[in-house]
Amino acid sequence: MTDRIVAKLKDLGHELPHPPAPVGAYVSVKQIGDLVVTSGQLPFVGKMLTFKGKVGAALQTEEAQFAALHAVLNALAHVRQHLGSLERVRQVLRLEGFVNSAPGFQDQTRVLNRASELLGRLFGEAGRHTRIAVGVAELPMDAAVEVTLWVQADMETPAAESPA
Amino acid sequence: MTDRIVAKLKDLGHELPHPPAPVGAYVSVKQIGDLVVTSGQLPFVGKMLTFKGKVGAALQTEEAQFAALHAVLNALAHVRQHLGSLERVRQVLRLEGFVNSAPGFQDQTRVLNRASELLGRLFGEAGRHTRIAVGVAELPMDAAVEVTLWVQADMETPAAESPA
Amino acid sequence: MTDRIVAKLKDLGHELPHPPAPVGAYVSVKQIGDLVVTSGQLPFVGKMLTFKGKVGAALQTEEAQFAALHAVLNALAHVRQHLGSLERVRQVLRLEGFVNSAPGFQDQTRVLNRASELLGRLFGEAGRHTRIAVGVAELPMDAAVEVTLWVQADMETPAAESPA
Repeated sequence: MTDRIVAKLKDLGHELPHPPAPVGAYVSVKQIGDLVVTSGQLPFVGKMLTFKGKVGAALQTEEAQFAALHAVLNALAHVRQHLGSLERVRQVLRLEGFVNSAPGFQDQTRVLNRASELLGRLFGEAGRHTRIAVGVAELPMDAAVEVTLWVQADMETPAAESPA
Repeated sequence: MTDRIVAKLKDLGHELPHPPAPVGAYVSVKQIGDLVVTSGQLPFVGKMLTFKGKVGAALQTEEAQFAALHAVLNALAHVRQHLGSLERVRQVLRLEGFVNSAPGFQDQTRVLNRASELLGRLFGEAGRHTRIAVGVAELPMDAAVEVTLWVQADMETPAAESPA
Repeated sequence: MTDRIVAKLKDLGHELPHPPAPVGAYVSVKQIGDLVVTSGQLPFVGKMLTFKGKVGAALQTEEAQFAALHAVLNALAHVRQHLGSLERVRQVLRLEGFVNSAPGFQDQTRVLNRASELLGRLFGEAGRHTRIAVGVAELPMDAAVEVTLWVQADMETPAAESPA
């Protein structure tokens, strides 16, 4: 079973991670009708948080951009596990970005842009999304960013296609 | 008219409060299709905020867990008033948790877990939800936490059943 | 083509601005079914942020109320551009308000009330909405507030009526 979005992701130099387990008493994805929402995702790679600390102090904007990328890849991994294939994403609706911000750091927009651009490259016009970008005081486990993804599922394509 | 969820809540040692009035020019619940969302709920018990101040300084994690419980009970009270019965909750979609966090407090996850666990106990598999947990700089009235609840309503069960 | 909501806005002393361009790699509005959501809006008037800095220190509550008004007007401008007319707003579901808060500022509710009241005056009962009000550590470009608007579109009224 091929997934053209995952293939495109690979072409862009990214690997879809195993979806990380929730870090609390919740689940990672829920669906209502064709609306699929994820829980807040942290920049885990495997079981390690790649970027911790406040952006603008412990971390530079460029590092935080990678953190946002790692977090959005985890969100995509959960969406894929839920839908069976990222080809079943009809459109990306919303990216919520919470940036662990040092006093005076006001470039939350740039932190999230790489993640937003990735979504555009993967899904084309359908990947263009609304966004919130806010600077928060603290995040769980001192993560640099937390993001959620809201997508619309294609309800006509079956979840699992047999390769025949 | 019995409400098995309210009965279960009582078995777990909780009372469903009267839904608190909004503290501004807004309403507490709105519905679109079968999606029901609440406004941000604070840990009011009656007209009193039970827990004020920053978690990690003025308040311990354990106290903040009670604050989150009080806030989510208020959200449930509003959902019940809106739907007529908590039995009409088909699934819980999302809990948004904003924790009034002292510098260095990074255990927002644990603050919200008790509230999340309560939802699981009340609604079973359908109560398992997505979640965001962020640490914010300030909250209205210095509340320790603010939460919202997003649920899917069962549109086939009528809002009010006559006991006959 | 008249738009009674825009006329009402004018009666209340407000002009609907040109919808400001996004400040990053995202779009300002997306729709799923009849649900329309905006990106986070800042208090831009033209290309200028009208209110920057922390509410409770650099800015008074009254100034922040204007900031919230400017931001919600921008959100309305985007919704109108998307739907063709604000008369196609069936109900306002949700206003998310993030207030750039100085330490100790806990009146986020009052900052957002004017924006909430405007929605009530424009749309009547249908304009009454749920809300979150949180105090955040930092916002993009040091904006005083960031708001989003969630509305339900009237799917029966066509987007563009020819003047016959």
